[in-house]
Amino acid sequence: MSNTPLPLFAGLSAFPLTPADEDGRVETDALQALVARIVDGKATSIGLLGSTGAYAYLSREERRRAVDAAIEAAAGRIPVIAGIGAIRTDQVQALARDAAAAGADGLLLAPVSYTPLTEEEVFQHYATVAATTDLPLCVYNNPSTTHFTFSESLIARLSAIETIRAVKMPPPKDLDFSGEMARLRNNAAADFAICYSGDWHGAEALLAGADAWYSVVGGLFPHAAAALTKSAREKDAGETARIDTMFEPLWSLFKAHGSLRVIYAAANLLGLTKAAPPRPILPLPEMLLPEIEKAIAALPER
Amino acid sequence: MSNTPLPLFAGLSAFPLTPADEDGRVETDALQALVARIVDGKATSIGLLGSTGAYAYLSREERRRAVDAAIEAAAGRIPVIAGIGAIRTDQVQALARDAAAAGADGLLLAPVSYTPLTEEEVFQHYATVAATTDLPLCVYNNPSTTHFTFSESLIARLSAIETIRAVKMPPPKDLDFSGEMARLRNNAAADFAICYSGDWHGAEALLAGADAWYSVVGGLFPHAAAALTKSAREKDAGETARIDTMFEPLWSLFKAHGSLRVIYAAANLLGLTKAAPPRPILPLPEMLLPEIEKAIAALPER
Repeated sequence: MSNTPLPLFAGLSAFPLTPADEDGRVETDALQALVARIVDGKATSIGLLGSTGAYAYLSREERRRAVDAAIEAAAGRIPVIAGIGAIRTDQVQALARDAAAAGADGLLLAPVSYTPLTEEEVFQHYATVAATTDLPLCVYNNPSTTHFTFSESLIARLSAIETIRAVKMPPPKDLDFSGEMARLRNNAAADFAICYSGDWHGAEALLAGADAWYSVVGGLFPHAAAALTKSAREKDAGETARIDTMFEPLWSLFKAHGSLRVIYAAANLLGLTKAAPPRPILPLPEMLLPEIEKAIAALPER
Repeated sequence: MSNTPLPLFAGLSAFPLTPADEDGRVETDALQALVARIVDGKATSIGLLGSTGAYAYLSREERRRAVDAAIEAAAGRIPVIAGIGAIRTDQVQALARDAAAAGADGLLLAPVSYTPLTEEEVFQHYATVAATTDLPLCVYNNPSTTHFTFSESLIARLSAIETIRAVKMPPPKDLDFSGEMARLRNNAAADFAICYSGDWHGAEALLAGADAWYSVVGGLFPHAAAALTKSAREKDAGETARIDTMFEPLWSLFKAHGSLRVIYAAANLLGLTKAAPPRPILPLPEMLLPEIEKAIAALPER
């Protein structure tokens, strides 16, 4: 076993939205254009069908279509990590097999729940899914959507499963990234990657030594997000802060309206897709569009 | 418009589990036996496909099979309220049409979510679904599973939609049922029913004047639950407390392990079904069964 995390789980993982019509049918052309943009922007990986990719709202068939389309567009130039979360364990197993058959490079799994789950249930869920394919798997720790909070001991326990090779963490409440990573790394295998989501804390996480940034803006503005990732991983705090400041108007919008709604509006404004978020989620009201337009204009890439 | 709530949304609404195999196929014979038991126990309505009915884990096809089977077994002797919650608005509309076509008497809708929803999104979701059928609808306010918290003003706004005739509330944090009901009734139409879930606070809610108790134990022990409901609605605090005390060992188990897991174990012990909860939810460990056996033995019906 190597002592360093998989390259798959390092750097900038760009999370595109999944353009789909109002019946939940994926618009593969628009998705492939987003993938090409991410390839062009030199992200490290594509985080397909993450929360930003609205995976929870898409059928198994449409998720398979999305994975096929993204892998075709990526054409081996960038690895594709596919989200496979679902409410039933057998559904997740089917999605894992679908992703593997389509040629995905890795899997991302959140403990989607309705009835609140126990630690043991989540552990058995991951163990069962991990046994389904050989693909490396990232634990998707996203309490704001799943409402399950991973204890550090559960993450350590999961990291002992051979194919579970990474965790995607939300920002720690006290924002002590270094302290949290030290504790997590102390209890996990040396090659277990500690990655962070939470766009407006990405710079902090990377400067503190996170293996990867799982980023919403990376899915739409990969050049700038990749530049931020590079400078932060090189510990260039000044350059990192400079780029982060350019994203600041977008962070404010994310905090106020949720990153998903804002990124749909931004993608619409950029002419990349006309897709709206899946109902019941509503598009942002038109009166907010000038502010989003302005936030986008602050970025070097459009 | 009448000044009193619909009889459909009064009294004891009994929430049975939905027996299903490990692939999520509903065992209609076992479900019909549970429905017959509820009819025999003289509950006021059946809350089919509620959280206890694991609706979130069943496909559209299986939910239709469950509604058909329950309505057949009820045979007009008790109204059936069908849960229609799902993550997409169009899915909920389809489920509403299915339930109406099957002959359900009412609908129960929780704002199932992944991306946290805004008040306006939830309002539009309900308005869209309410326009799909003529069936009376109960708003299912269950923050512990949906993670959406209804404001009192949103409930008031929803109560103005013609077919939205009831709300199923969780127990208020301060347990001031009277105060909460007074505020809700002050802002809603006179015929809007205020119902409560939360099994171990059912007696308090009913004594304080709740229109209905939406009860997990009602789905398995309807005689005792109906007796509690009757005495509480007649303001007989002594008799209500006497029955509630019989349920006390079960309340302790519900608090410790979640009512869903306990009620599956109890139904298994009673020989009513061999079904386990849907994975990732795990059956309770065998070492707990003697305690559940004892809690059941405390009840007058078995």
